[in-house]
Amino acid sequence: MRTFKLTLEYDGTDFNGWQIQANAERTVQAVLEKALSKIFKKKRVIVIGSGRTDKGVHARGQVAHFRVQTLMQPKELLPALNYNLPYDLAVVKVEGADADFHAQLSAKAKTYSYTIFNRPFQSPLERRTSVFFPRKINLKRLRDEAKLLVGKHDFTSFANVDLSRTCDAVRTIHRLDVKKRGDHIVITIEANGFLYKMVRNIVGTLLGVATGRFPAGSVKRMLKAKDRRAAGMAALPQGLCLEEVKY
Amino acid sequence: MRTFKLTLEYDGTDFNGWQIQANAERTVQAVLEKALSKIFKKKRVIVIGSGRTDKGVHARGQVAHFRVQTLMQPKELLPALNYNLPYDLAVVKVEGADADFHAQLSAKAKTYSYTIFNRPFQSPLERRTSVFFPRKINLKRLRDEAKLLVGKHDFTSFANVDLSRTCDAVRTIHRLDVKKRGDHIVITIEANGFLYKMVRNIVGTLLGVATGRFPAGSVKRMLKAKDRRAAGMAALPQGLCLEEVKY
Repeated sequence: MRTFKLTLEYDGTDFNGWQIQANAERTVQAVLEKALSKIFKKKRVIVIGSGRTDKGVHARGQVAHFRVQTLMQPKELLPALNYNLPYDLAVVKVEGADADFHAQLSAKAKTYSYTIFNRPFQSPLERRTSVFFPRKINLKRLRDEAKLLVGKHDFTSFANVDLSRTCDAVRTIHRLDVKKRGDHIVITIEANGFLYKMVRNIVGTLLGVATGRFPAGSVKRMLKAKDRRAAGMAALPQGLCLEEVKY
Repeated sequence: MRTFKLTLEYDGTDFNGWQIQANAERTVQAVLEKALSKIFKKKRVIVIGSGRTDKGVHARGQVAHFRVQTLMQPKELLPALNYNLPYDLAVVKVEGADADFHAQLSAKAKTYSYTIFNRPFQSPLERRTSVFFPRKINLKRLRDEAKLLVGKHDFTSFANVDLSRTCDAVRTIHRLDVKKRGDHIVITIEANGFLYKMVRNIVGTLLGVATGRFPAGSVKRMLKAKDRRAAGMAALPQGLCLEEVKY
C-alpha cells in the first residue's frame, strides 16, 4: 500500500461541502473518490480530508490522503487526476507520504482567509469568493478586537456544536490578521485547530464590533461566557477559504 | 434631458458580449437597458458603451452613458439600478455628465488586463477570469517583445476586421506591462484606442514569442506586414478584462 497526500483547490459554490453524503449529493470528497476509483479501477478509494468544509466554502490548500496498491508515481497521478476532475476542483500537488500520515490527525495548524467587499453592492467578478458588506467598518476597532482572540482560549462561544460531551474547545490562534486593499478586507486566521463554524462565527462577531453593534472588548466577555449565544452570528460561507494545512 | 455616466463591473462568462442583439440574447447592454427602462418607466432607454466587449470578456471599469428626462440624482440611481441588475452585473459609479458627453466618442484612452495562470491545469477559483497556460513562459522574452509594441503603430496585423475601407489602424499604445505574482502573469495594456480583438491578438502573439514559437523581435515584422495572417492567434476571451476608460 502506498499513501498519497493531495493538495486541493476548489470553488465551493456548486459543491454541497466536503463530506460525502448518503443521498449522493455533489460533494468534494464524493467527486474526488469517484475520479480515484476510476483511475485505480477500484470500487472505492477512501479519501480522508484535513477537515470538512461547509457548502459554499472554498479551498486553495485543502489537504487529503488516501492509500492504494499501485506503482503509479505522484507526478503521474497529478495530470491523470486533474483530467478526471470537473472545472471547479483541481489537484494542485500530489506527494508520496509516510504510511502513518493522516490528513486530519497529523495536521498541526490550519489557515483560513475570509474576504469582505466593503461596499454597498456585490462584486460581479468576485461574488463567489467574497461577501459584500455595505456598512461602515471601523478598521482600527476590527484590528484591536481581533488581537484579543489571539492565543490559547476556550472557544465554546464561537462553536456551533454541542461540546457538553467532548468538552475540549480549547484552541490556540497563532495569527489573526486584517488587511485592507481598496474595498477589500481580508481576515486571515491561523490556529492549531478549528471548531465547527469557528472562523465564520469569529468573523461575524468581529464585524459586529467593527460596526458598533457590540462594544469594543466584547470578545473577552464572549470567550468567558462559554456559550454560543453570547457571540455574534456566523458570516456567510462564500467569503471563507481554507488556505493552508500545516503538518 | 440629463446625461448620466455609468461605470460598470461585470462577469462576462454568462453574457453574450456587450452589444444588444436582434435575437434577444442576454447581453450587458440589453440587461442594462431593461433595468433603466423599468426605473424610468420608458419603452427604451438607449445606453451607449465605450466600446463592445466580446462574449466571455469581463469589465471592472466599462463606461456607458444615457440621456433621460428625470429629476433623479446620480446617488439615488446607484442603489435603484443595482437593485434591478442581476448578480453578474453591477454599477460601480453613477455620475452626472455634460450634455455632449459620449462614452465612445469622448474616450481618450482605455486599459485592459489579461490574466494568465501559468501552470498545467486550470484554477477552480479563478477559471472565469483567467486562462491557464501550461507551457513554459520566458518572462524576459515576453517583456522585451511587449516593449516593441509600445508607441504609435499601424496595428492592421493585430485586428480581426476588414480595414480596406476604413484604413485607419493606427493606434498608440501608452503602456504594456507584464507582472508576475506566483503562477499569475498579468499583462496590462493601455492605448488611445483598440481595434477589434487587438488585445487578444497581441497577447496570443506575445505568448508565441515567450514560448519560442516565434523568434524574438517578430512583432516588428508583423507590424510591418499589415496583414492579420502575419501575427499569432487570439488568446481566449476569459482572461480579458476592461479595467478603465479615460476621458
